[in-house]
Amino acid sequence: MSYERLIAHHRELALLSSVAALLEWDERTLMPPAAGPYRAEQLTALAGMIHRRRTDPAIGEWLDAAGDVGGDPASPEATNVRELRRAFDKESRRPAELVERITRATVIGQQRWQAARAANDFASFAPSLETIVALRREESAALGPTEHPYDPLLDDYEPGETAATVGPVLRELRDELVPIVRAIADDGRPPRRDVLERRYAPDAQAAFARDAAAAIGFDFDAGRLDTSAHPFCSGVAPRDCRITTRYLERFFSGAFFGVLHEAGHGIYEQGLDPDAFGLPAGSAVSLGIHESQSRLWENLVGRRRSFWEHFYPTLRAAFPGTLDDVTLDEFHAAINDVRPSLIRVEADELTYNLHILLRFELECALMTGDLSVGDLPGAWNDAMARDLGITPPDDTNGVLQDIHWGAGLVGYFPTYALGNVFASQLFERAAVELGDLDAQFAAGEFTPLRDWLRVHVHRPGQARPARALIEHVTGTPPAPDALLRHVRDVAALHGIESR
Amino acid sequence: MSYERLIAHHRELALLSSVAALLEWDERTLMPPAAGPYRAEQLTALAGMIHRRRTDPAIGEWLDAAGDVGGDPASPEATNVRELRRAFDKESRRPAELVERITRATVIGQQRWQAARAANDFASFAPSLETIVALRREESAALGPTEHPYDPLLDDYEPGETAATVGPVLRELRDELVPIVRAIADDGRPPRRDVLERRYAPDAQAAFARDAAAAIGFDFDAGRLDTSAHPFCSGVAPRDCRITTRYLERFFSGAFFGVLHEAGHGIYEQGLDPDAFGLPAGSAVSLGIHESQSRLWENLVGRRRSFWEHFYPTLRAAFPGTLDDVTLDEFHAAINDVRPSLIRVEADELTYNLHILLRFELECALMTGDLSVGDLPGAWNDAMARDLGITPPDDTNGVLQDIHWGAGLVGYFPTYALGNVFASQLFERAAVELGDLDAQFAAGEFTPLRDWLRVHVHRPGQARPARALIEHVTGTPPAPDALLRHVRDVAALHGIESR
Repeated sequence: MSYERLIAHHRELALLSSVAALLEWDERTLMPPAAGPYRAEQLTALAGMIHRRRTDPAIGEWLDAAGDVGGDPASPEATNVRELRRAFDKESRRPAELVERITRATVIGQQRWQAARAANDFASFAPSLETIVALRREESAALGPTEHPYDPLLDDYEPGETAATVGPVLRELRDELVPIVRAIADDGRPPRRDVLERRYAPDAQAAFARDAAAAIGFDFDAGRLDTSAHPFCSGVAPRDCRITTRYLERFFSGAFFGVLHEAGHGIYEQGLDPDAFGLPAGSAVSLGIHESQSRLWENLVGRRRSFWEHFYPTLRAAFPGTLDDVTLDEFHAAINDVRPSLIRVEADELTYNLHILLRFELECALMTGDLSVGDLPGAWNDAMARDLGITPPDDTNGVLQDIHWGAGLVGYFPTYALGNVFASQLFERAAVELGDLDAQFAAGEFTPLRDWLRVHVHRPGQARPARALIEHVTGTPPAPDALLRHVRDVAALHGIESR
Repeated sequence: MSYERLIAHHRELALLSSVAALLEWDERTLMPPAAGPYRAEQLTALAGMIHRRRTDPAIGEWLDAAGDVGGDPASPEATNVRELRRAFDKESRRPAELVERITRATVIGQQRWQAARAANDFASFAPSLETIVALRREESAALGPTEHPYDPLLDDYEPGETAATVGPVLRELRDELVPIVRAIADDGRPPRRDVLERRYAPDAQAAFARDAAAAIGFDFDAGRLDTSAHPFCSGVAPRDCRITTRYLERFFSGAFFGVLHEAGHGIYEQGLDPDAFGLPAGSAVSLGIHESQSRLWENLVGRRRSFWEHFYPTLRAAFPGTLDDVTLDEFHAAINDVRPSLIRVEADELTYNLHILLRFELECALMTGDLSVGDLPGAWNDAMARDLGITPPDDTNGVLQDIHWGAGLVGYFPTYALGNVFASQLFERAAVELGDLDAQFAAGEFTPLRDWLRVHVHRPGQARPARALIEHVTGTPPAPDALLRHVRDVAALHGIESR
């Protein structure tokens, strides 16, 4: 009975969260501008109802009474009990008054960050960031003891991972990537990047992107594609996953690869067990695994030559005349352009990792106290020079560019790079099991890969944490090797042979 | 304190209802098809939460403690207490187990009606309808005693009105309308109706309709226009009113006048006090008053020659070549075509009232027991022959055409005709106060009329019930005279001069 009550309670929680998710989706896509204040009241009321249920002491009693569920630890029942207990125990150790102080500090932090970025004035943001770092260290201590103060924070986004487990993976990735990126920048053949900046009618972009999302397996019977200022994916409800993008008439890649990226997130959401919606057995493993699904379709599939062997004729037909003078190989090289740049969210697939790795290094140092907030801008610029070979002209294009730290998010960044690591490992394994993926892609067949991911990654939900899942599926724990093999393939497109 | 608690409680109720309204809007416009079952779970859960709060016994205690609010009975405070008490007292007299039986009977009734309409088989629906009629009579008795068993049901939609108050108005309207409609059918000049059935590209229809809705005063900063299978207006939240329509390429009038109609509802919603959202002081008076606002803009403004003096050049430009051979007068006559037809929802502005009046007469007779369900189809056909001069070839196009009775809605129909009556009275009064409305419309000026309605009809909310509101604003209680003057104007367009 305790197990049934636990599940019924969390299904009710999922239902309320799902209502809130729809309101948030609507707010970001369609809501009339004047409706904002009342929407905030609605979401606040729902958040209160959700919070009360999430912290209901009865959960602890049900968990105690449920005891250990025997049998297969990857069964839905065992998964639900284990993960709900893990979450409940961690929340119980997080002091409520500290959570409140963090909430207040991050509201102020975001405002200060926004003003500071606009004014290129790091000093005005520094006190807020110092408070946030101090509070997160306090939180880490409350949740600890752990080997590294970063660990309890990283664990919020990537359960079970620590600085000691992901650090070596990420550092090895950086050490290998830096010389390859440098070689491409110094000696690579630059592609005809201008071909992506011609005129691409937004309506035709939308139709083409929708067709591609459907082709790779996003189910429009159980999902939508809309437009919003900032692209996102929301698994609003079981069988209701909504993705968004933004069309720029003079830049093809932004919207198109954005749709593949969000569709990848969406295919994961759609692949979860709908009957376990909102329960651990029907929820995503971690941000890193989620990101592996978006990056896999965006980069490993969507920037692959075989993908465009199938889609390039359709693309040319969708934008008559625009690409008449561009060969498939030239187009393929253009969408795989690599060049060091200042802004993370505009970076190419390879240098993107370097942006992440320097943030990971800096936030680890902030958490140990080895780096002070005052020294952060200098450390940022040094790391940019060291890893990307360029130095930001100002903090707006440097240390102030991301919202994350001002919003209190410490430990979030590495999940982006972990996503790339996981994606490459999964993709290599799929190729072993599914045979010639390039032949399939060239024939427009993406279902075998989608279904393989569904069986091995999506459907199990949180049956295994990320590290165990990757090892279970690929036979290898998280490691940068597969991603680095992919990196060398991209480098070869630019005429750079490494190793 | 009791008043404040009462209001806080109902604000929370409004907030939850508003969340449900957004989910319902989304379900009818955008929701992916596969998401239906979970949406039903969400709405059921919300309905439960809303029901528990609506029937909270504390409401009665707060109302008792609040006592009589002195001062102006039309003040927001007096309005809130009076109308919340009225609603609470009425709900308290409605036996819960009877409500449950009615709910069950109407679920079955709708299913049976749907099957019966498809199969043209009234007999298979008759037992369900008999049950519904019996239950509504039982409900009426529980809510009574009243002069006429119809009264408590009508009061649900048109508070304060009774068979004795609206009956004479509606019967006089019918007695005057019947010969005018007959004269138009027999001796009128038929307009070039085909001009509305040419090719009108849906995109251009949408843009033109949106411009017209904005011109008459629908605020797109606080609202939206979307498409749905069945057009509707939902005042989702304060400053968030959403209307829908459906575009048919080969019929201009359906979508365009539908948008004016829903925009009229929407302008009412947008004109209510947003700070009293969901409270009586910020809610619509009745269905009849709501319908008066939609019909006023759709028919009295939108089918007027002066409206098209302004819009016809734009219309011609929006559909190049389509209307080159059609004069303004020919177009104006076409959109005011009058001809008896079988189906209510497809009827023109004049005959529409006759469809309503016969339903009112029949449902009154069902409630008194003067008419049995078994005799209903015959009575329907007789009334159609008497009032519209045509006889349905089958029950699918006759007594089975509307969902209302199968869904248990008895007392709802007359609000449509009352809307027309109220609209004409309000429009005549506005013309007295605002001067030459035709000159304003021809110049594209609709704001004076919109603002006049806002001040006199929208902003007061439920300060006065419908009858008192109409008398307060126009100086005359509800009466068909103004509508009949308008009817004669329409008849004159067809060359029929009456009186």
